[in-house]
Amino acid sequence: MPLRKSAPARRASEPAIELGDLNERLGYFVRRLQVWIFQDFIRLLSSIEISPAQFSVLVVIAANPGLSQAELSATLAIERARLVRLLHRLEQRGLTQRLPSAGDGRRHALQLTRDGQSVLTRAKALAAQHEAGLKQKLGAERYKLLLDNMRIV
Amino acid sequence: MPLRKSAPARRASEPAIELGDLNERLGYFVRRLQVWIFQDFIRLLSSIEISPAQFSVLVVIAANPGLSQAELSATLAIERARLVRLLHRLEQRGLTQRLPSAGDGRRHALQLTRDGQSVLTRAKALAAQHEAGLKQKLGAERYKLLLDNMRIV
Repeated sequence: MPLRKSAPARRASEPAIELGDLNERLGYFVRRLQVWIFQDFIRLLSSIEISPAQFSVLVVIAANPGLSQAELSATLAIERARLVRLLHRLEQRGLTQRLPSAGDGRRHALQLTRDGQSVLTRAKALAAQHEAGLKQKLGAERYKLLLDNMRIV
Repeated sequence: MPLRKSAPARRASEPAIELGDLNERLGYFVRRLQVWIFQDFIRLLSSIEISPAQFSVLVVIAANPGLSQAELSATLAIERARLVRLLHRLEQRGLTQRLPSAGDGRRHALQLTRDGQSVLTRAKALAAQHEAGLKQKLGAERYKLLLDNMRIV
């Protein structure tokens, strides 16, 4: 089909923009929801300068004190090099620390500091607020249905 | 609680790492699935150098020839400045073009070029392959359930 030199104008009365094939792509809708989630989460947690990835790291260290970087990397599927940078920043802020492991001196055991525990408490309150907003956006029933069917990683 | 100088070692016989509060956070699981989706999609479409965002843009332009940048930006929730850069790259590759709109000379109507249509055909085949992999990962029933309940953006 030859290309037109001047395209017909779309009018306000025309139907809404079509998503085409995207309408049958779960990947597209997962991405859209994830973008909404990140924007809302980042906005809410900006007051304490905690990113979504940092939040996950703090939660998992608190739930498993003494775990290693390798275990943390595998659990959260965060690439090793990125996790090292992320932990370095948390350590510089005095929120986490690496102690030599009693079992293996070459291995480091991750822990939250007292400040880390206090920041995590505030972060959890803000994250709960974010999650409540997500539940409201989706409706309680759909929220539960999605949560029950997405714990597959 | 005072911090220990040396943390106890985790043993192989210990239970798996706990996700803690993350286990009740839909946001966390949406992010995990989205990361899996992007990695697989990017891998599959790397042969034709099309990113997930570029794919969405090509699909929506093809489904709505003549739409404006503002319409495209609103439909895909891509920030205006980012969309301008993205369209610039697609235009440089000869895949899209901006024609003056017949209705309003200041407004540009987006179209795929012939090359753009051909690249989109190949991209759609690879995206279908990706989506089939996602369906297999989730199971057909769960895949359908998630798709039916995530068209909410």
